[in-house]
Amino acid sequence: MDSLVLSRRDLDFLLYEWLDVTALTARERFAEHGRETFDAVLDVCAHMATELFATHNKISDQQEPHLVDGRVVLPAEIGVALQAFAGAGLLCAGLDASLGGMQLPAVIEKAGFAWFMAANVATASYPLLSMANANLLLAYGSPEQVDRYARPMLTGRFFGTMCLSEPQAGSSLGDMRTRAVADGTNWRLFGNKMWISGGEHELAENIIHLVLARIEGAAAGVKGLSLFIVPRYLLDAKGNPAIANDVCLAGLNHKMGYRGTVNTLLNFGEGRFTPDGSAGARGFLVGQPGQGLACMFHMMNEARIGVGLGATALGYTAYLHALAYARTRLQGRPQGSRDPAAAQVPIVRHADVRRMLLAQKSYVEGGLALNLYCARLVDEQRTGEPGARREALLLLDLLTPVAKSWPSAWCLEANNLAIQVHGGYGYTRDFNVEQFWRDNRLNAIHEGTHGIQALDLLGRKVGMQEGAALALLVERVRRTIAAAPAVLSDQAALLTRWFDRLLEVTAVLRDAADRQVALANASVYLDAFGHVVLAWIWLEQGRVAAVGEQSDAHFYAGKLAACRYFFSRELPKVGAMLDLLEGLDDDLIRLQDDGL
Amino acid sequence: MDSLVLSRRDLDFLLYEWLDVTALTARERFAEHGRETFDAVLDVCAHMATELFATHNKISDQQEPHLVDGRVVLPAEIGVALQAFAGAGLLCAGLDASLGGMQLPAVIEKAGFAWFMAANVATASYPLLSMANANLLLAYGSPEQVDRYARPMLTGRFFGTMCLSEPQAGSSLGDMRTRAVADGTNWRLFGNKMWISGGEHELAENIIHLVLARIEGAAAGVKGLSLFIVPRYLLDAKGNPAIANDVCLAGLNHKMGYRGTVNTLLNFGEGRFTPDGSAGARGFLVGQPGQGLACMFHMMNEARIGVGLGATALGYTAYLHALAYARTRLQGRPQGSRDPAAAQVPIVRHADVRRMLLAQKSYVEGGLALNLYCARLVDEQRTGEPGARREALLLLDLLTPVAKSWPSAWCLEANNLAIQVHGGYGYTRDFNVEQFWRDNRLNAIHEGTHGIQALDLLGRKVGMQEGAALALLVERVRRTIAAAPAVLSDQAALLTRWFDRLLEVTAVLRDAADRQVALANASVYLDAFGHVVLAWIWLEQGRVAAVGEQSDAHFYAGKLAACRYFFSRELPKVGAMLDLLEGLDDDLIRLQDDGL
Repeated sequence: MDSLVLSRRDLDFLLYEWLDVTALTARERFAEHGRETFDAVLDVCAHMATELFATHNKISDQQEPHLVDGRVVLPAEIGVALQAFAGAGLLCAGLDASLGGMQLPAVIEKAGFAWFMAANVATASYPLLSMANANLLLAYGSPEQVDRYARPMLTGRFFGTMCLSEPQAGSSLGDMRTRAVADGTNWRLFGNKMWISGGEHELAENIIHLVLARIEGAAAGVKGLSLFIVPRYLLDAKGNPAIANDVCLAGLNHKMGYRGTVNTLLNFGEGRFTPDGSAGARGFLVGQPGQGLACMFHMMNEARIGVGLGATALGYTAYLHALAYARTRLQGRPQGSRDPAAAQVPIVRHADVRRMLLAQKSYVEGGLALNLYCARLVDEQRTGEPGARREALLLLDLLTPVAKSWPSAWCLEANNLAIQVHGGYGYTRDFNVEQFWRDNRLNAIHEGTHGIQALDLLGRKVGMQEGAALALLVERVRRTIAAAPAVLSDQAALLTRWFDRLLEVTAVLRDAADRQVALANASVYLDAFGHVVLAWIWLEQGRVAAVGEQSDAHFYAGKLAACRYFFSRELPKVGAMLDLLEGLDDDLIRLQDDGL
Repeated sequence: MDSLVLSRRDLDFLLYEWLDVTALTARERFAEHGRETFDAVLDVCAHMATELFATHNKISDQQEPHLVDGRVVLPAEIGVALQAFAGAGLLCAGLDASLGGMQLPAVIEKAGFAWFMAANVATASYPLLSMANANLLLAYGSPEQVDRYARPMLTGRFFGTMCLSEPQAGSSLGDMRTRAVADGTNWRLFGNKMWISGGEHELAENIIHLVLARIEGAAAGVKGLSLFIVPRYLLDAKGNPAIANDVCLAGLNHKMGYRGTVNTLLNFGEGRFTPDGSAGARGFLVGQPGQGLACMFHMMNEARIGVGLGATALGYTAYLHALAYARTRLQGRPQGSRDPAAAQVPIVRHADVRRMLLAQKSYVEGGLALNLYCARLVDEQRTGEPGARREALLLLDLLTPVAKSWPSAWCLEANNLAIQVHGGYGYTRDFNVEQFWRDNRLNAIHEGTHGIQALDLLGRKVGMQEGAALALLVERVRRTIAAAPAVLSDQAALLTRWFDRLLEVTAVLRDAADRQVALANASVYLDAFGHVVLAWIWLEQGRVAAVGEQSDAHFYAGKLAACRYFFSRELPKVGAMLDLLEGLDDDLIRLQDDGL
């Protein structure tokens, strides 16, 4: 049976037929690799995700994290799955051999990780956070910090968190109030952190919190923030957890989805623990004072692509579930047939069900392609020639808000359609699709909301370096259009038309006298920009599919059908958005709050 | 504090300023009524919904119906609320005084009921089903059936259900297999019914199932279906429940939302009970053999408007929650202000939050207006002059698929945006908006899916009686356009443009050589038709708001802002849909299933 988790065939298409990932093995960093090792990793991920992660996805939705005698209790299956994940070396799949890593390209690592997110996004978030935390320490930590905190996270002994939000400071990071007080060479922290995923549990020997806090006397706003390592247990000289630090669990958040990821409110320096006789959570400064947010944002592109990939994975598995259901569920007869004695047909035969399935396919395969394209840019940024590195970073900066937001909106819509295909059954917990929808709803909120991504794109990225990133995208898109095969000439023409229109409207917004008015509809701009980018990604996929081998004709025909679907039914949606943006409508600004 | 359940101010606007509901009191049936009695009913509904229904909405989401010793256990609050509802006479609010009813207009009854659905849609579904059941018996039952079964439902002694779906027959009603075997003057039924809301519980002395079944030897398909009363307990001569009928609970369905409504799989004639010595659920034929579906469909317009109103109510309460949150939650500073020491502002000050709130407002106030307009048509159909009755029924038939589907899609989007306004908090169960979203997701599925509504609209309603219903809508829309005030002349022009375009495309679809191709995109047609109808409804509201009194200027300014919002940001979406439809795209039909 075909997998209901993810499509290996599609991954192979994207990685090998489109992104030519094997070419990376010509580079020194990846010289030990080849198609065989890449395939082996993908096989392991598929197998482990299917056998150890998907199998407890519903269990951890139903047995939500809860407290017993003050300790967080999680389903045992989570720990088993994560030990296997760590045991397979996947926590450091992309890292240097000197760190025990496999030196895999980011694009393979992400493709492999997509299996885990599709199978069980809540369990997958523990390693995701630990890896992000460790990577940040590898980039900014001292050698001692790397040894004591990062290395144990890479073997799964310790887990990690990211502590940014506070109850009164979510999107507005500059309003964080957590304080850091000097204490000899180190620091004591006091404050409350909200929405901390993996903030407390017994899955590992220790939990390493990376905490943004303001050193007493530092500037207000984001410039006054510094980054600290705050371990749950302070380490002894040998690096073993020894003494409880002054970090305590103030509560668990009960979410609509993503339930297997324990989400916490943590109090730092509450005084419940006094590790060396006084209150205050002991912290160790990472990098320089005032550089906290810069450190965090260094990892932001990858973290946001990770969110987009998770949103895609949830939509993708839902699509596969809907497709399998539609092929087996019998209901009704072909349109126009009125003989009630005739046999019922599988619902995949009904036009409206096919519409929903094609829409899902265009969203999830498009989202996956975009996210892997971005991961491929990460590899280029790290291992390419200097010019290519610069370009890859520029393009990555520009595409990241789209890679995060577009799947969070449209692969959620794929989840919605997957429920609809299932009818009443899809609304029950006997089937899986309702959970995927609930889980995916988080992705438009965390790691920067949709509105925050929109301001990032229109307010920063599009205009940065005098439009250099956008100019680069123009070049790439034009290249794709020029290379489009004859069977996709209509689609190439449509992309030309709408991309030009997007650039025209972008110029209007750039030149607007009132920047506040130009930015008021940033979300609409993000939506339009996203759909145009996805049309480009679909034309890229179509270009490759058009020359696909006859031996797998159904697969390529499906790609081309989804490509055409996106151009005929999705891309035209940007027309109304761009018209609105061009008008520089200030209705949102003029509106009186009292009228709402 | 303003209500978070529903807006009485908006209801007053719709009922009295727009629909001129008091004019109905000139009719004999409503002669006892006046603004005072209408207001009193609305007051009671608002109060009872707020104090008895909203208060256990979260409880019944958390304490899902479950079995204890074979009996369905529900939170006690549900029973208390429903007794109060029955005690206030609301089960027969619209019925004849001779039946103990208040003879209220349907439009007032629905406006009152909207309070209950907004407060607690799951609890409200019990009286909704009982009323639908009783109304059907009043229309088609014998006088004895009315006395024995309908009357006790109108006082709340008995509750009712509708048993249509079977595990293998949902949208395809003609494939029902439940059999009815003659047994003297009555019948014995055998079969399984799925998705039966309120199918078993201990809230009432008895449950009266209305069951569609096929009399042995009857035709295949829908024409062979007949309707039967199947009580849970057979009545003695005095009408008291006496003997267990052969109906048994085969299982509870566990849903994503609407959890307080116990949803069951029922087995009829399984033989667990043998009321008079043999298996088979005793049933009593309603109306004539073979008329089962016709009886059910007689009530369909009202049932579907009820679903649309429920979807609207869930979106509406979510909007009010989001608005209240946005006015109090402090986060960030005005766009362009870079002083981190300045005070944070309520998020309602941010353009993107205002965009989300205005979108919600345009969806939920639009949905409520449409549904009450339809309810007003029900009154016209029942109590108007003969010509007006005929017109009202025509228009109602045409608008019903929109009244059901449009709020199920767009007020669900209002729920989605309400979560987004709340940020991370909205994703938790500490707040209410995530439940509203889960609850509302059902409405696009039950009482005919979105796709079924689309086929109803395009395949039947638009063309019926040689387009008479559509012609009537044309006349009404033109009248609205002609009456538009100068401040809404742009909107009137836009409605003219898009309505003409809709008619143009409708003609193309009507004249298409291949009906299968014309119907393949029926869902797109429903979406486009719905948005144009809502634009008309918004221009109607705008027309009235434009002459609103200065003493309540904020309210009218808000109406006009939402009206303009709908025209500038929603209506233009139909352009791409209509272009697609005009092209008679047959991609969905040509598609090979293997490519999905």
